[in-house]
Amino acid sequence: MNPLASPLLTDLYQLTMLHAYYTHGMRDTAVFELFVRKLPPNRNFMMAAGLEQALDFLEDLRFTAEDLEWVGKSRLFPREFARQLEGLHFTGDVHAMPEGTIFFPDEPVLRVTAPMPEAQFVESRLINLVHFETLVATKAARSVLAAPGKRLVDFGLRRAHGAEAGLLAARASYLAGFAGTATVIAGARMGIPVFGTMAHSFVEAHDDEAAAFEHFAQTYPGRAVLLIDTYDTELAALKVVALASKLKSRGIRIQGVRLDSGNHLVLARNVRRILNEGGLADASIFASGNLDEYQLRALCAAGAPIDGFGIGTSLVTSSDAPFLDAVYKLQEYAGKPRRKRSTGKATWPGRKQVFRQYDSAGCFHHDIIAVEDDNEKTGEPLLIPVMKRGRRLHGPETLAAIRGRAAAQLAKLPRHLALLETATVAYPVEIHPALRKLANQVDRVTSEVPVLCR
Amino acid sequence: MNPLASPLLTDLYQLTMLHAYYTHGMRDTAVFELFVRKLPPNRNFMMAAGLEQALDFLEDLRFTAEDLEWVGKSRLFPREFARQLEGLHFTGDVHAMPEGTIFFPDEPVLRVTAPMPEAQFVESRLINLVHFETLVATKAARSVLAAPGKRLVDFGLRRAHGAEAGLLAARASYLAGFAGTATVIAGARMGIPVFGTMAHSFVEAHDDEAAAFEHFAQTYPGRAVLLIDTYDTELAALKVVALASKLKSRGIRIQGVRLDSGNHLVLARNVRRILNEGGLADASIFASGNLDEYQLRALCAAGAPIDGFGIGTSLVTSSDAPFLDAVYKLQEYAGKPRRKRSTGKATWPGRKQVFRQYDSAGCFHHDIIAVEDDNEKTGEPLLIPVMKRGRRLHGPETLAAIRGRAAAQLAKLPRHLALLETATVAYPVEIHPALRKLANQVDRVTSEVPVLCR
Repeated sequence: MNPLASPLLTDLYQLTMLHAYYTHGMRDTAVFELFVRKLPPNRNFMMAAGLEQALDFLEDLRFTAEDLEWVGKSRLFPREFARQLEGLHFTGDVHAMPEGTIFFPDEPVLRVTAPMPEAQFVESRLINLVHFETLVATKAARSVLAAPGKRLVDFGLRRAHGAEAGLLAARASYLAGFAGTATVIAGARMGIPVFGTMAHSFVEAHDDEAAAFEHFAQTYPGRAVLLIDTYDTELAALKVVALASKLKSRGIRIQGVRLDSGNHLVLARNVRRILNEGGLADASIFASGNLDEYQLRALCAAGAPIDGFGIGTSLVTSSDAPFLDAVYKLQEYAGKPRRKRSTGKATWPGRKQVFRQYDSAGCFHHDIIAVEDDNEKTGEPLLIPVMKRGRRLHGPETLAAIRGRAAAQLAKLPRHLALLETATVAYPVEIHPALRKLANQVDRVTSEVPVLCR
Repeated sequence: MNPLASPLLTDLYQLTMLHAYYTHGMRDTAVFELFVRKLPPNRNFMMAAGLEQALDFLEDLRFTAEDLEWVGKSRLFPREFARQLEGLHFTGDVHAMPEGTIFFPDEPVLRVTAPMPEAQFVESRLINLVHFETLVATKAARSVLAAPGKRLVDFGLRRAHGAEAGLLAARASYLAGFAGTATVIAGARMGIPVFGTMAHSFVEAHDDEAAAFEHFAQTYPGRAVLLIDTYDTELAALKVVALASKLKSRGIRIQGVRLDSGNHLVLARNVRRILNEGGLADASIFASGNLDEYQLRALCAAGAPIDGFGIGTSLVTSSDAPFLDAVYKLQEYAGKPRRKRSTGKATWPGRKQVFRQYDSAGCFHHDIIAVEDDNEKTGEPLLIPVMKRGRRLHGPETLAAIRGRAAAQLAKLPRHLALLETATVAYPVEIHPALRKLANQVDRVTSEVPVLCR
C-alpha cells in the first residue's frame, strides 16, 4: 500500500547485522518479543493496535530491484549481499495480542519466531507500526472513558507527523471507540466513517456571515453543521436561528453548529439556549479547538450541552506522552533463552505468555507473565498464534470486531485504572516464579559478574 | 512518491467546502498564509523545513480514477462533483521562506495565492508536511547548538509516528545540521548519509560477547563500531582492547565503541581510559540511549570524551513539544483583506512580508511583519517567490545548500536565543503600523461589534 514501507525503511544496523549473520552462518531460530518497558505519564494501561499493518508488512516483505540496486551501489556491503537479499522474505511465526486488548508494561504484545536474519531484520518497522497505533489507541481510549456517550471524531491530520500517521491515527482512534475521523483517506482506504463541517475561511470568504451559512446549508440540505465562532459565537447562533426559519419554508433543516474557540462551557450553554428558544432544540452542538481528554472530562462533569467533540493534535501526537518505551528484544536463540542486562534495560528471557485473571464481577484482577511452555495455565492466555510460516492464520479482523473487543476490554478495566491520572495502586503484573528462575539461570551462564534479578 | 499523498489525504471539510465553492461560483483569488501562532515551551525560534515536499505535493496534485470512484460512491456529494474534481490541479503562486530559515511566531513561512477552491483544498496536507519537518528541524537545531562539533545522528525511525515521519525526520534533522541518519531509505531516496552499528541482539545471539565482537569486526574491517553495554560496559571495553591486539596482526582496525545505557559521563571516561591504555586512542566513542539536547549539553559541559551521539525518540517526536501551533489562514479574497477574530485566534489580514533587520555584527536584530505591497522596504524580505502558476520557479534546492543556510542562520541567532530554555527577552517581532491600520479597517467592515486589535 505504501512504497515507503520498502524493506529499506529500516535502520542501517539491521542490514549490517543481516550481512554479518549471513557471513557467519547464524540462521538458527530466534525469538523476539515486542513490549513496552514502562507506562508513560498519566497512563494506567495501554491498548494494543497496529497488528494488522504489522502482518501486512511481514507478508509483503520483499526487496525490489530498485532497493537491491541501491544496496549494491552503496559500497556499504560486498556485491554478493544484494544477491542474498533478493531471496529474503519472512517465513516465521507470529503470536500476538489481538488489537484492542488492554495490556501492561513488560507484557509481550507480539512475538516473532523465525530464522535469526529475518527475525532481526523486521525490528525497526514492526516497532514503528505497533508503537504508533498503540500510542494513539491508548490516548483515544482515554477520551472514550472521559466522555461516555459523546460522539468523538479524529480531527488530527494536519498536525499528525506525516501522511501515514494521519491515516493510522484515524484507524487507531476508531478502534478505541471514536465514531470516525475527518481524514478522507481513512474512509476511502479503510471504510472508517468520515465527518466534516466547514472552515473559518468559508465564512471569511463571504462578505456576510449569514450569507456563508445560507450557502452552506443550501449545499448540504439537512446535513449542514455551521461553524459559528469566526467573529462572535452568540451573534452567529442568532443568525443560525434566523436562517433556520427562513429555510424551513423551503424544507431545509440545519443539522447543528460547531464551536471552535473561547470558553466552550459558557458558549455551549448560551448557544443551546439561543437554539432552543429559536425552535432548534434538535440542532446538535459540536465542539472542537485544542481539546483533549482532560477538557472533555471537565466539560462532561459540568454538564456542558455538547453532543460531540472533534479532537485533533492532542490525539494524533499523543501530546502529553508522545512515545512509548516500546522495544523488540531477543529472548531466545538456537533453543537457548537470552536476555540483555544493560543498566535499567534488563529483560525477561525466553518465550513468554501473559495470563489474565478476572475477579468475580468479570473485571481484570491481575496478570501473570510466565514461561510459555509451562504446563501450568494460570488464567486466560492473551497471546494467540496469528501467523504461521509467513502466512496469516486468519483473514484480517474487521474493524467492527476490534471495536467490539476494545469496548469490552474497557468495560472490564478496574475503575481506578479508568481515570486520567496515574492510579495510586498500579495494575498487578506478576512474574511467574519459573520465569524468575529462568532469568537467574541465564545470568549464571552468560555472566562473568553476578547480576541480581530485578 | 507516496500514494498516501493522494488528494484524499485531506479533511472532509476541504471537499465539502470545495463543492460549496463550485456550487456558488466562488472562484476568485484567495490568499492563504501558513504560520505558527506561538512558540512551544522552551523554544526561542523555529527553523522552516518541508517546503520541498510541499511544492512536490502542489505540483503533483491530481485525483486518480480510484479517488474519483470513491468520491462518486461516497454518497456525500452529487455525481457531478466527481467530474469537477477530475480537472482540479494547482494553478497558483507560492511565496515562502527558504528551508533552513529561522523564523518566529505570526510570521508567514508560506503563502498561497490561487483560485479559492485550490487554495482552500491544499490546506490539510500543506500544514501536515510543513508542520512536521519544521517541528523536527527546530528540535534538531537545538541539539546542534547544544553539542557543537559533535557528530549527531538520527536514530529515531522505530518510534517515529509512521513511515513518512521516519523519512522526513531524517531529512529535517540533516538539514538542521545532523551528520546523517540510521534510516536507510533516507539514504536511498534522498542521498542523506547513513550510519549504523550493531544491536544487543547480535551480542546476545552469541554465547560469548568477545566472539560477537570478533565476528562483527571481521565482517566490517576498519569500520566496526562495537556496542559494549549488553552486559557490563567496562568489561566489554577490556574485551575490545584484547580483540584489537589480536586483529592488529591481521591488519584489522576497530573504529570505535557505542555506549547505550547507564551513566554516559562516567562510562565514557572509564572506557576512554581503558581504550587509551590499551593502545586504542584513535577508537571513537559514540553514545546513544534516550538522549536529548539537554543531556547533550550536560555531557559536553562536563567534557565527556564522546565523539558522537545517536538521538532517536526525543528528536523525531519532538518529545518535549510534539506539535507547533501551525495554521493556514485566509488573509485575502477577491481583492479584499480578511481576518478571523475568534477568541485567542485572531489573525493579521492581507498579503504580508517579513523583513529582517541585522545589527552591526550581522546578527538578527528584529523582524517586522508588514503589508507586502507597502513600498517601504524595511530590511531583508524573507518570503521569496518559489512557484508561479503551479510550476516551481527553480529546481529543488540541494540538501547541501539548505544545510549551509541553516548553519548560517544559527550563526546569526542572538546568543541568548540559542539556549535551550525560554529566553527572558523574546526576539522582537514588530507589526508594521500600516498592518495594524489594515486590521482595524477590516474589522470596521465585517464587524457588528467593536473588536480591539491585539
